[in-house]
Amino acid sequence: MAVPIILIVALVAGIISIVMAMYFRYLVLKEDPGNERMQEVAGYIEEGAITYLKIQYKILGIFVAILAVAMLFLPTPFEDSDTYTRLFSDALNWEQMLAYIIGAVGSMFAGWLGMYVGVKANTRAAQGCTIGTKKGFDVAFFGGAVMGLAVVGVALIGVSTLYWIMPDPMIVLGFSFGASSVALFMKCGGGIFTKTADVGADLVGKAEYNLPEDDPRNPATIADNVGDNVGDIAGMGSDLFDSYVASIVAAMMLAAAFSITSTIYFPFGGIDLTAEGRAVLVVAPIVLCGVGLIASLIGIYLIKLKGSDEPGKALNTGTYLATLVYFGLSALFTFLLSIGLEAAEIGLLWRIWGTSAIGLIAGIILGFTSDYFTRDDKKPTRNIANAAKEGHAVVILSGFSYGLLSVVPPALGVILAMAVAFWLAGFFGVAMAAVGLLSIVGTIVSNDAYGPIVDNARAIAEQGDLGEDVIRTADRLDSAGNTAKAITKGFAIGAANLTVLALLFSFVEEARAKGATIDSINLLNVNVLIGAFVGVVIPALFSALLILAVQRNAAKMVDEIRRQFEENPKILSGEEPADFSKTIDIATKGSIRELILPSIISIIVPIAIGVLFGVAALGAFLGGAILSGFVFAVMMSNAGGAWDNAKKWIEDGNLGGKGTNVHKASITGDTVGDPFKDTAGPSINTLLVVMSLTASIFLGFLLLFNGGAGLLADLLTIVIP
Amino acid sequence: MAVPIILIVALVAGIISIVMAMYFRYLVLKEDPGNERMQEVAGYIEEGAITYLKIQYKILGIFVAILAVAMLFLPTPFEDSDTYTRLFSDALNWEQMLAYIIGAVGSMFAGWLGMYVGVKANTRAAQGCTIGTKKGFDVAFFGGAVMGLAVVGVALIGVSTLYWIMPDPMIVLGFSFGASSVALFMKCGGGIFTKTADVGADLVGKAEYNLPEDDPRNPATIADNVGDNVGDIAGMGSDLFDSYVASIVAAMMLAAAFSITSTIYFPFGGIDLTAEGRAVLVVAPIVLCGVGLIASLIGIYLIKLKGSDEPGKALNTGTYLATLVYFGLSALFTFLLSIGLEAAEIGLLWRIWGTSAIGLIAGIILGFTSDYFTRDDKKPTRNIANAAKEGHAVVILSGFSYGLLSVVPPALGVILAMAVAFWLAGFFGVAMAAVGLLSIVGTIVSNDAYGPIVDNARAIAEQGDLGEDVIRTADRLDSAGNTAKAITKGFAIGAANLTVLALLFSFVEEARAKGATIDSINLLNVNVLIGAFVGVVIPALFSALLILAVQRNAAKMVDEIRRQFEENPKILSGEEPADFSKTIDIATKGSIRELILPSIISIIVPIAIGVLFGVAALGAFLGGAILSGFVFAVMMSNAGGAWDNAKKWIEDGNLGGKGTNVHKASITGDTVGDPFKDTAGPSINTLLVVMSLTASIFLGFLLLFNGGAGLLADLLTIVIP
Repeated sequence: MAVPIILIVALVAGIISIVMAMYFRYLVLKEDPGNERMQEVAGYIEEGAITYLKIQYKILGIFVAILAVAMLFLPTPFEDSDTYTRLFSDALNWEQMLAYIIGAVGSMFAGWLGMYVGVKANTRAAQGCTIGTKKGFDVAFFGGAVMGLAVVGVALIGVSTLYWIMPDPMIVLGFSFGASSVALFMKCGGGIFTKTADVGADLVGKAEYNLPEDDPRNPATIADNVGDNVGDIAGMGSDLFDSYVASIVAAMMLAAAFSITSTIYFPFGGIDLTAEGRAVLVVAPIVLCGVGLIASLIGIYLIKLKGSDEPGKALNTGTYLATLVYFGLSALFTFLLSIGLEAAEIGLLWRIWGTSAIGLIAGIILGFTSDYFTRDDKKPTRNIANAAKEGHAVVILSGFSYGLLSVVPPALGVILAMAVAFWLAGFFGVAMAAVGLLSIVGTIVSNDAYGPIVDNARAIAEQGDLGEDVIRTADRLDSAGNTAKAITKGFAIGAANLTVLALLFSFVEEARAKGATIDSINLLNVNVLIGAFVGVVIPALFSALLILAVQRNAAKMVDEIRRQFEENPKILSGEEPADFSKTIDIATKGSIRELILPSIISIIVPIAIGVLFGVAALGAFLGGAILSGFVFAVMMSNAGGAWDNAKKWIEDGNLGGKGTNVHKASITGDTVGDPFKDTAGPSINTLLVVMSLTASIFLGFLLLFNGGAGLLADLLTIVIP
Repeated sequence: MAVPIILIVALVAGIISIVMAMYFRYLVLKEDPGNERMQEVAGYIEEGAITYLKIQYKILGIFVAILAVAMLFLPTPFEDSDTYTRLFSDALNWEQMLAYIIGAVGSMFAGWLGMYVGVKANTRAAQGCTIGTKKGFDVAFFGGAVMGLAVVGVALIGVSTLYWIMPDPMIVLGFSFGASSVALFMKCGGGIFTKTADVGADLVGKAEYNLPEDDPRNPATIADNVGDNVGDIAGMGSDLFDSYVASIVAAMMLAAAFSITSTIYFPFGGIDLTAEGRAVLVVAPIVLCGVGLIASLIGIYLIKLKGSDEPGKALNTGTYLATLVYFGLSALFTFLLSIGLEAAEIGLLWRIWGTSAIGLIAGIILGFTSDYFTRDDKKPTRNIANAAKEGHAVVILSGFSYGLLSVVPPALGVILAMAVAFWLAGFFGVAMAAVGLLSIVGTIVSNDAYGPIVDNARAIAEQGDLGEDVIRTADRLDSAGNTAKAITKGFAIGAANLTVLALLFSFVEEARAKGATIDSINLLNVNVLIGAFVGVVIPALFSALLILAVQRNAAKMVDEIRRQFEENPKILSGEEPADFSKTIDIATKGSIRELILPSIISIIVPIAIGVLFGVAALGAFLGGAILSGFVFAVMMSNAGGAWDNAKKWIEDGNLGGKGTNVHKASITGDTVGDPFKDTAGPSINTLLVVMSLTASIFLGFLLLFNGGAGLLADLLTIVIP
């Protein structure tokens, strides 16, 4: 089938997605926002979130502008006349830069829309809980779906339109880099913000003054709620936006490389591709993502139609439905894509369909693995809870160890998915597995954004004095949200991991196409080994910087909370409201100040490695960072999740329940886990994508140094005559 | 100079070393063992340590026997007639096996001797403190020197004699593997033992009953002291024994490979080697180690002559002296080795001398880096201590982050040392840097073993009622010991890292010599990438298993201590002694049970990777494990050390001092850090060496699977026609 026509699928799906997001937005906004006190609290949260976004976007604008200028003016060995195929040429700086800015603005828009509706949905969901579980769930789910649909809609419209106008994956790469730049800021900044508030609120409120969670007297409560929105809605949304687009780009770049070799190789042979076949392969990732979006839309719509009294089940049903619909629809579109192709190419397309299915299944399994390691009815979390009986130190040791252990199953899962995908369709197969994994990301982001909405709803119900029954209903919704979040995190880590592996391969193809000598990434070359070494260390450094940032900021928050309580005793007695704006201000400014250094590192270090040690070393750097980043991301996410749930399980009355020493020890675990699971762990995903894309974007510049071999090449290379 | 003659240097130095060890043993034993109560306590410690070693050696015997049989009977593609050069042949199974057993027995002997004297020295050092700092220091220093000298003496006598009789590095490889097998058991087992006792004693004694450290009423006190000996004396000794021999073997194997190519290549060219020149290169590592031992002996002897009132300064002086003497003496022996060689070869020898000097300097810098990150007068530890003001969770976050940060400087140090060494003399240069680093290991082990002796001496002084003044003197000695330990750990990690890198290179040379196709370790081959992925995950898995082991065992210890206090209240009132044998029994049995799984993993996983994914993937596996292992080892060692010293700093009266909430939070940090720094962190070094040697030893077996390409090679390899 003619390529431009089938590309319409993605564009149309994207537009439907945005329309549906707007419809859900309308559904949410028309709901009752609850009593005056609730609206007041929701108003504070909204104001805080919008303020944060404004400042964040301002700094982000500067960052994007600097990188845009760098993209435009950094010299490369290529000239305009080199735009022979447009593929992999580097002379389209201004077009790539434009795509970069569009990507950044698109990601910001999706983040803004999702968060705007999120902060409107929380109070309405709380009010919905006064009617019943179903109503509360509906409002929160619609609110979350706005984020999910906006993310995927904007991404698909951007990618398909850009490729339609300028059919060169390098342009889409610019778009992807824009999305990633935003994701880095949203994820790191949001992560620092949310945990600054959360840790600060817990340390003073719970530990020193025995205030319950979400107590309105605690000056950091609102900041904590704002943090849920900026960290968990906008942050996770931009993270998956970023992985989503990056996976498409990686696959497109690998497919574009076939226009140079004309042949695709995989372990059991090779297939010569026709021009038509090559064109189909390049758009296949976009098409399958469009199909995945339709599958997500159907899943979300069915949940809407049916409604549910069992929130956890409903969310999972949506995921399963989307998966099943994807399998069917993607088969149909594989058939459509194959019309007019040669027999061998048709076989190849079906293999590629297989890789995308494997990727999706792997993602779901990874999600449930991380669920296993963090569920309070499974052994790891139970053991961690029991370890709290021995005190603070033992609960930490236990959670840390189980976090490390939990790396093994998903590592084996990714390895298996990668191996099978490679066996089916070579490196392109691995990239398509990542695309398949991320195809239903609309559903995943929706489920994930549901979490902070109900978390906020619970807080608003508490502060709006809606009574125990309503709070219990909100708690049920919240608990489903936590499970959804655990699954999403496993999914997101798997997605990021497969995506960056695909980006590594596409980087190598790009380098080859641009004439760099990169036949191998050989660890026996000392410069390559050095690249790998630095790469393995980077996630550790990055995690350290982020956790220290949270710690520094939380200390300021603690001082501010103590100051308010001491200077105005009426806050504690509930006679006067706390000064929320001051705590929000601390979290906002601190998070933005602290994300500068990690952001710079993620851009500068890959470039420095490339300049000094060469392109192959940069490949090894990315490889090392991907593998060690996987270990750190999984460990921190799962340890944090397990500590959190162990604490909740104890708070449910187990092992003595609230107020005991066991409970206090479990709070220590939870507090350590907070920046693990919500700041450092998930930021690593984005770090990896940003570093991989940086390598691809600035590849031309790197070729100026010893032809891509790096300035120190001669010192570290043995040439055997 | 004729090779056999110069080899005598190493043999003679080894023998002098053993003689001096015996002399120091005599000096220690003739000292006054103190009052009856002290002798009683020392008796308990000695008995516990000996019991532990006996059981440990019994299980170790079984483990060694199984591996010996495997070495003898596992099939290889080679036959006896293939022993063309004896180099790299695999048909000398029984000789290699014999060397293996000798290495194991030698390491056990050195461990036994060092520990035997260590447990005698502690009470005598305590008694010495009644006379003065100098006397106490002397006894403890002599006691520690026995371990240092025994380790190096046995290693050098073993290596030089074996090579003299059977001049094949593969035989020495067997010896090295024997030493490593023992080190794995001693390090993991000792690490679990010591922290089971320490954590258990602290959790109940300090936290629940407010007993001071080393209180004789605490039933786990003696087990804790035994642990210092088995973990820190025998464990660290066998660890450095293992790195020491492994570094020699790696360099010898790389040198032996020149007999195949006849040429040594480095970045600025290549040199054709004469037969004489090749022979000199093979023995150069042994000779330089002999020289290093002499330098250590001189350093130790000068400290003995001079004595010191400033223990910390004396220990460092010993290190500096040994380093300086090494520079001079090694230059002399480089000159002697160069006699009769051709001009180009003489130049090469001087380059190699340079690499060994760079290695040694790097080791010392690494040691002081880890000292910086763990000293209580430097920023990291101060910040961690201050974080304790915010409670348990923040002190953990702070220590964990600084631990991660502390990875960066030593990583850069190792990278720089590797790069310069490679620039000077290629892969052989890197191996010789490791040899240089480890050359003065006699001094390093001596200083390190001094630590637990004075730690024990302090405990005995406390339990023997020697009074506050004597305890303060012992405290001063102890504090110097802690600094020495921090430096040693940084040194040991750097040594292990450079050594395993050298082992990786020598593994590749061996594989090439045996006909495996391993031109590169190319991360773009999926099987190689899978190998690297598994490698990066392994140190995380290993750490998790060891920390969980400590946690499980410590819980049993806690139960036992509580039981004793509850069943017999007279223990707490001091009227009746606690039942020490029961707690020692728990620590002993638990540690031995828990080390089985990690030990099996370290042997089985490399073999499995080789069988399934091939020799190149195994190389990548080792590379991944080396880099990620470095991150984990440094992070855990330094975080643990910093937490420990932050606690001590608070106990010195800062931030409110003992008994405050700040102090309690700092104890949590210390307790978390205990298994980090004394179990998991240092065990990773040994893990890496064992896995690397396993790869080399069982290489012949791996070649049976698809010629070393692995069973799954065809499924994962793209062959472009």
